[in-house]
Amino acid sequence: MPGRLITIEGIDGAGKSTLAVALHDALRREGAPVLLLREPGGVALSERLRAVVKDPALRVDAAAEALIYAAARAQLVVERLRPALDAGEWVLLDRFVDSSLAYQGAGRGLGIATVRAVNDLATGGLEPDRTLLLRIDPTTGRARQGVRGESADRLEQEPDAFFATIAHAYDELAAAEPDRFRVLDASRGPHEVLQAALGALADLPRT
Amino acid sequence: MPGRLITIEGIDGAGKSTLAVALHDALRREGAPVLLLREPGGVALSERLRAVVKDPALRVDAAAEALIYAAARAQLVVERLRPALDAGEWVLLDRFVDSSLAYQGAGRGLGIATVRAVNDLATGGLEPDRTLLLRIDPTTGRARQGVRGESADRLEQEPDAFFATIAHAYDELAAAEPDRFRVLDASRGPHEVLQAALGALADLPRT
Repeated sequence: MPGRLITIEGIDGAGKSTLAVALHDALRREGAPVLLLREPGGVALSERLRAVVKDPALRVDAAAEALIYAAARAQLVVERLRPALDAGEWVLLDRFVDSSLAYQGAGRGLGIATVRAVNDLATGGLEPDRTLLLRIDPTTGRARQGVRGESADRLEQEPDAFFATIAHAYDELAAAEPDRFRVLDASRGPHEVLQAALGALADLPRT
Repeated sequence: MPGRLITIEGIDGAGKSTLAVALHDALRREGAPVLLLREPGGVALSERLRAVVKDPALRVDAAAEALIYAAARAQLVVERLRPALDAGEWVLLDRFVDSSLAYQGAGRGLGIATVRAVNDLATGGLEPDRTLLLRIDPTTGRARQGVRGESADRLEQEPDAFFATIAHAYDELAAAEPDRFRVLDASRGPHEVLQAALGALADLPRT
């Protein structure tokens, strides 16, 4: 039986990484083979591309940014995701195509359809079995980031309207594919979000 | 008056770089402002991506390769090509979109239409005013590379059939756009190829 691809999406500060780690632990306790990965990264080429796209000294315009994320995704799919899924593993993935649609397609204004076409080449048609969208008020999300004390990168210098646009795009993506998406209230505490996430995966047959 | 974008295309060993330098000198002697660039590269992000895609220690599959070249191209277009052309400069460019169509679209088997769609995002519709295709027998081209004594990179480990496929794809691209393409016999000496190239640009109004 092929594995399952579960993606975790949402704006910065929504708590994706925290949920990813907790969910990884919870699923492993169930005895399933689970791989936890985050984009961009996961294989050597994609980690190199991550370092490039996040280098604050480099000018990276919208189209180049979308294409670099897609390149990192393409190598992750062929080198890591497909083999793991074929081997029956579950894969938890912190960001996938929907991030590019929301951030570069809507946020940067390249257009959802344009970014989707580029990502069709990157994924070769691989789609998540389930996508958990952590929904949070953009202002709250940004405040959480501030609490984490991360260094300001390219994204964090964007105005609030940028993140509001992305949050709205995520909502529209979720509404368009209700079978794949489950929207979770990310304003709650980590334990409540984890329980909601487990509930949102309960109907997926375990391997 | 906007500048002119002249691209130089052909399989490895056809003599693109040699022609590019000679043509740059010749056009400068005519008094025109001419910029000489080669892909991937030309701006900081694209040079970083060049180092990544040419690193023999990294696994780079076909889709990722096509997307990295497109990303490097996107940044070059917006940061360097568009401003130079808007300022009335001529730009000589050693490889552009046609390389991706021939190498990744045909050679790697991703499909010309798929790679073209990705590159539409990268170029934002910018097309060369003239493309000089250096046509040479693939075996001769490879022998020339051997003479240059370059270290074997990913491409140079490919079988002859790969380069024959690319050469054929270039011929088809040229046949489909006879106004843009000029096909030059690259089996001749550098001086003859330069004269043919200058002849192939003679109808373009100088700035």
